[in-house]
Amino acid sequence: MPLKIIAFDADDTLWHNETLYHIAQDKFARLLSKYISTQDLGEQLYQTETKNLAYFGYGIKSFTLSMIETAGLLTQGCISTADILEIIGFAREMLDAPVELLPQVHEVISRLSAKYHLMIITKGDLLDQNRKLERSGLAAYFDWVEVVSDKTSQVYSNLFSVHHILPEDFVMVGNSLRSDILPVVALGAQAIYIPYDLTWAHEHEIGHLSALDGYFELASIDFLPELIDSLHEIDNE
Amino acid sequence: MPLKIIAFDADDTLWHNETLYHIAQDKFARLLSKYISTQDLGEQLYQTETKNLAYFGYGIKSFTLSMIETAGLLTQGCISTADILEIIGFAREMLDAPVELLPQVHEVISRLSAKYHLMIITKGDLLDQNRKLERSGLAAYFDWVEVVSDKTSQVYSNLFSVHHILPEDFVMVGNSLRSDILPVVALGAQAIYIPYDLTWAHEHEIGHLSALDGYFELASIDFLPELIDSLHEIDNE
Repeated sequence: MPLKIIAFDADDTLWHNETLYHIAQDKFARLLSKYISTQDLGEQLYQTETKNLAYFGYGIKSFTLSMIETAGLLTQGCISTADILEIIGFAREMLDAPVELLPQVHEVISRLSAKYHLMIITKGDLLDQNRKLERSGLAAYFDWVEVVSDKTSQVYSNLFSVHHILPEDFVMVGNSLRSDILPVVALGAQAIYIPYDLTWAHEHEIGHLSALDGYFELASIDFLPELIDSLHEIDNE
Repeated sequence: MPLKIIAFDADDTLWHNETLYHIAQDKFARLLSKYISTQDLGEQLYQTETKNLAYFGYGIKSFTLSMIETAGLLTQGCISTADILEIIGFAREMLDAPVELLPQVHEVISRLSAKYHLMIITKGDLLDQNRKLERSGLAAYFDWVEVVSDKTSQVYSNLFSVHHILPEDFVMVGNSLRSDILPVVALGAQAIYIPYDLTWAHEHEIGHLSALDGYFELASIDFLPELIDSLHEIDNE
């Protein structure tokens, strides 16, 4: 009976996302290279992003404001209006980018949806996340989609309450230990960690975890249906 | 039995919001007046906002990107980096502004919460709306809070489905005919329109409605408990 609900993180779990930020950041560095040395640009942008997180939250608009602010801080005197408009253009390109699913995602989601209730729990910008889900071709497989401003145990606990979910019925799948795994395990639910090649620096800022009970690690989503089925069977024994 | 759930729009229904945008826009005009004539600035900013709505959605970050873009379009050659940073500073001031409740809101919400389930349905930025609700001192009165990227009949219909709400049990209270009243009435639910003094130009772009059935208009939230109670009694006859 248990393990009825499988929730997925979206960005870099179901589809590529961090790559978009890397591409934009490369363009940003090229743009600023006519004003300044861009050697430490990544570090400076990251500092601005971190400072702005409490104000602006996650997502492309927040990232773009941080790029503009970093450009303002680093260029002396004035920045050409054409270049300001180009930075805002990076945001439009990111928002317009096609959604590229990770390998096997469509098959795995389709297969799991036949046996379990599926849910998306994602951070970021409401409008942008909904748009990506529409473009992904996966929307019909999910019973619920929740866009949240942060993923703490309290936030998961509120979602459990709204959707009448018992922790023992719930497993979260995602690429961030900080957001998808630890707060879920802390509530007594299960979590499956599938790392992504590129992960934003902010997500790395967490102590090393060697053998934490209660979560599983998979190299790829390919293995997910098998793991889920075995968890389901164990729970039913 | 019916009329169990009363949902409120938040910005300019529970607390002042549009005034923050007006204050920021005045500062923006003063800032740009050293570069250009700001006579048509409001109109030009509005055009940029409208164009960006599909990309950036509603909220302060979106507004700020539109201010920066408008500044870029209107100033020739270059804009000083200090001024770019000042525009981003306007966003932080807006996000940091104290939440100022409209008159009587606290009393009315507190009184209604004793008899009905209360809900917030608001557009805008997830992080910002949650932060304002926390600061408002009203959070404890609401059973559910839904931040949505647009308020169409489809969106309301999805919320009804998630929360198991029947249209005849539901009344929406808000200051926007376009967002709070028409899409709700279209679903067979009830709606109560409480106009706000300042309303964003975008919300005005709708034909005049003289006597549409199914919605009520109140001059102030003071009269809401009485109206709600009378609706409740009529339904129970």
